[in-house]
Amino acid sequence: MNLILIKPSELDHATVTLTDRRADHIRSVLRGSVGDTVRVGILDGPMGTGVIQAISAESVVLGVDAADPPPPPPATDLILALPRPIILKKVLAQAASLGVGRIFLVNANRVEKSFFNASIIKDNAYRSYLELGLEQAVDTRMPQVSIHTRFRPFVEDLLPGAAARCPIKLIAHPESDRFLFEQVPAPLSSRVLLAIGPEGGWVEYEIDKFRQQGFLPFSLGPRILRLDTAVPALLAQIDLLRLTGRRQAPGP
Amino acid sequence: MNLILIKPSELDHATVTLTDRRADHIRSVLRGSVGDTVRVGILDGPMGTGVIQAISAESVVLGVDAADPPPPPPATDLILALPRPIILKKVLAQAASLGVGRIFLVNANRVEKSFFNASIIKDNAYRSYLELGLEQAVDTRMPQVSIHTRFRPFVEDLLPGAAARCPIKLIAHPESDRFLFEQVPAPLSSRVLLAIGPEGGWVEYEIDKFRQQGFLPFSLGPRILRLDTAVPALLAQIDLLRLTGRRQAPGP
Repeated sequence: MNLILIKPSELDHATVTLTDRRADHIRSVLRGSVGDTVRVGILDGPMGTGVIQAISAESVVLGVDAADPPPPPPATDLILALPRPIILKKVLAQAASLGVGRIFLVNANRVEKSFFNASIIKDNAYRSYLELGLEQAVDTRMPQVSIHTRFRPFVEDLLPGAAARCPIKLIAHPESDRFLFEQVPAPLSSRVLLAIGPEGGWVEYEIDKFRQQGFLPFSLGPRILRLDTAVPALLAQIDLLRLTGRRQAPGP
Repeated sequence: MNLILIKPSELDHATVTLTDRRADHIRSVLRGSVGDTVRVGILDGPMGTGVIQAISAESVVLGVDAADPPPPPPATDLILALPRPIILKKVLAQAASLGVGRIFLVNANRVEKSFFNASIIKDNAYRSYLELGLEQAVDTRMPQVSIHTRFRPFVEDLLPGAAARCPIKLIAHPESDRFLFEQVPAPLSSRVLLAIGPEGGWVEYEIDKFRQQGFLPFSLGPRILRLDTAVPALLAQIDLLRLTGRRQAPGP
């Protein structure tokens, strides 16, 4: 936890009283005392410092001064065929720590339908994993997650709007003979929408539906990666393609 | 498990009798019957197919025909300040799935000394996590792991030999103002040795020791990543720098 993340509703004027794992963290890991400062962020808002005003076995009271802007909004959105819950937890934290704007969790032919009944999907329980990622990365911008139990209404009714925001649309597809970087104009400066399929991949019908909306297929290469390796790998490669464009002198 | 990984010592002429989770996988996930084929690989050897010769609740007997070469040897080696065991397990599987040649697990000022007493470090127990990564990625080349309980003998006596094999030497260091790609000549075609520090980073003395041996510091950017996000992110970025060099036409 590199940032104490505070919900706006928890703020009482400029103080917050913490009683959960954030208080534990300040007590046990940071070993804070009255007067010490900790790094804080307001969920979907500014970042700054919290001064410990009181500390006990039950609670920690912070005086909050948060006026610094959070990191710039991420320029990548993610479509994920819903993975099994244990992987979803990891991938949500990873994605939030690397920075993504939207996460669409969608059904697909090879998604096990029972995954949509998992407790992490109910009552927005997945939000706590996104918070872990933000606390880790020192960011306050919560990715917007939406859950789509039917593939076709998602792809036909909702995707066109989401895709319109993202000039670069990519879909991971093991059978493609192109790599990610071959499907992305260099330097990369546009918003990216990245679709990653289930274990076993998208079926041809699904690939076609994405292609019809301008998605370009690419392969990760011959190595088959677990989702909690593939997601950081791909988001990092997209970041790298963006950075090389920004830092290097324009080519001839 | 996308590959049934077999140790050479398990082969009896061209058959192997499996009784562990590999047999469970063939029975329960692949739902194999006599005559079916599965993808097999000989640890640190060739890959091919296994034909199910017998299957029961106790065991699965495969006739093995393995003559295909495994993927090319990875061109990246990794130095990791030893992380906590739960993270180490994940990172070893991730690194093996992405492909690394050597993994040096080293002590550092900010490594908790108790991590060296963890059961995963004893009796080569970490090998099972590397096997998970190889089974996932369909590879047979086991990364060579070595454990170094003292930083200075590692860096002074052992590192020069390891570094001599790797023209590109990089060290992750949050305070650097350079990104990874700025410290790597493009196109990247040389062997890379990548050093990643503990939570909280390397101390200045450690950075200096690496610098003296030609390591170039780089920052991952302002976001603080967990090791099981940072390792796939960095290995994937190095892969991308290699691939762009290999596929793109040489510049003017």
